[in-house]
Amino acid sequence: MYSTSLNAIGEIYHKIEHCLIGTGSLEQVDTVYSHPQALGQCRKFIQQHNIKTVPSYDTAGSVKIIKEMKKQNVACIASKNASKINQVSIIKEGIADNPNNYTRFLVLSKKQAEETQKDKTSIIFSIKHEPGTLFRIMEKFNECGVNLTKIESRPKKDTAWEYNFYVDFERNADDAKISEMINKIKENTLFLKILGSYPAAELT
Amino acid sequence: MYSTSLNAIGEIYHKIEHCLIGTGSLEQVDTVYSHPQALGQCRKFIQQHNIKTVPSYDTAGSVKIIKEMKKQNVACIASKNASKINQVSIIKEGIADNPNNYTRFLVLSKKQAEETQKDKTSIIFSIKHEPGTLFRIMEKFNECGVNLTKIESRPKKDTAWEYNFYVDFERNADDAKISEMINKIKENTLFLKILGSYPAAELT
Repeated sequence: MYSTSLNAIGEIYHKIEHCLIGTGSLEQVDTVYSHPQALGQCRKFIQQHNIKTVPSYDTAGSVKIIKEMKKQNVACIASKNASKINQVSIIKEGIADNPNNYTRFLVLSKKQAEETQKDKTSIIFSIKHEPGTLFRIMEKFNECGVNLTKIESRPKKDTAWEYNFYVDFERNADDAKISEMINKIKENTLFLKILGSYPAAELT
Repeated sequence: MYSTSLNAIGEIYHKIEHCLIGTGSLEQVDTVYSHPQALGQCRKFIQQHNIKTVPSYDTAGSVKIIKEMKKQNVACIASKNASKINQVSIIKEGIADNPNNYTRFLVLSKKQAEETQKDKTSIIFSIKHEPGTLFRIMEKFNECGVNLTKIESRPKKDTAWEYNFYVDFERNADDAKISEMINKIKENTLFLKILGSYPAAELT
């Protein structure tokens, strides 16, 4: 996002629904293949049923692996869709510890999104690592009554002890008050890039 | 970190040094195996030499894969150490786009670390998603002259629109002024857990 010339024009929340997929029954399964992240997200289920885990490169690929193995005791964790595409049955749906698991994606485009009444804006900026620098920026958001929906610091790649911040907030960057706020924030940053403003998505 | 009873007693910065590993010469290599993250971190090198990429489950495992293939045109990206363990030669060292690539690890223990003159503290807290809540917390850090070294928001797993924050700052939590600051911060949080205080590591 740092070096692209594309604009963020939307966000999508994709619900992750993990299923146990295989040819045997739940009682038969003693080994499960999947991406380490999916295995971690289904930890309780795996422990409950005392199943051995084998990490694989991705969840969808794990369906292919277990299909070729043709063993009733070996299953995998992947999406409903991966079960359909590879035509392997679902043994049990919704086996994740937390049923409300979403991944957020930004939609990128060469164009910009049109302004709506419920927009969000994503920005990236870098600051010197001195006490109070981030606070003076937060102060500007607060003065403007702007609600942050994400903040993340990452050490800069090239120079130690300078930080990049990834910040999302409610409101459109073209709004006069917001545009003025961003100009004030720029006085406290080494670098600031507006990735784009876009309609806020609802979690469905 | 959220649910463990262990304390953070130290941090370690591990330098990631990517090497091209294989049996052929750089001119012969047309395909490279590695973890997608490592492939991404060596993008410039891969493009420059017009090499095809194949994602694998981990960097160390990719050395085993290409060793078994015994082809001079197939190499992998992994650490010096993985080259040594598997006894496959290094074709080229330090091929990452950015030579200063560190991964940070926290050291956990049942005990607590002893106080030093240069400590850091890691905390987790959650707040209601209302404008100004995070700002009031940042204000406490600022009043105390405390320098944040990391801040990250993550939506809470169970309830939408409440956020967990992962914050690291310079100073020991047992310091009287810091302990008082944390108590003030608690008034603005739904939940706060001190993961631990530990000596700040130097990037070496």
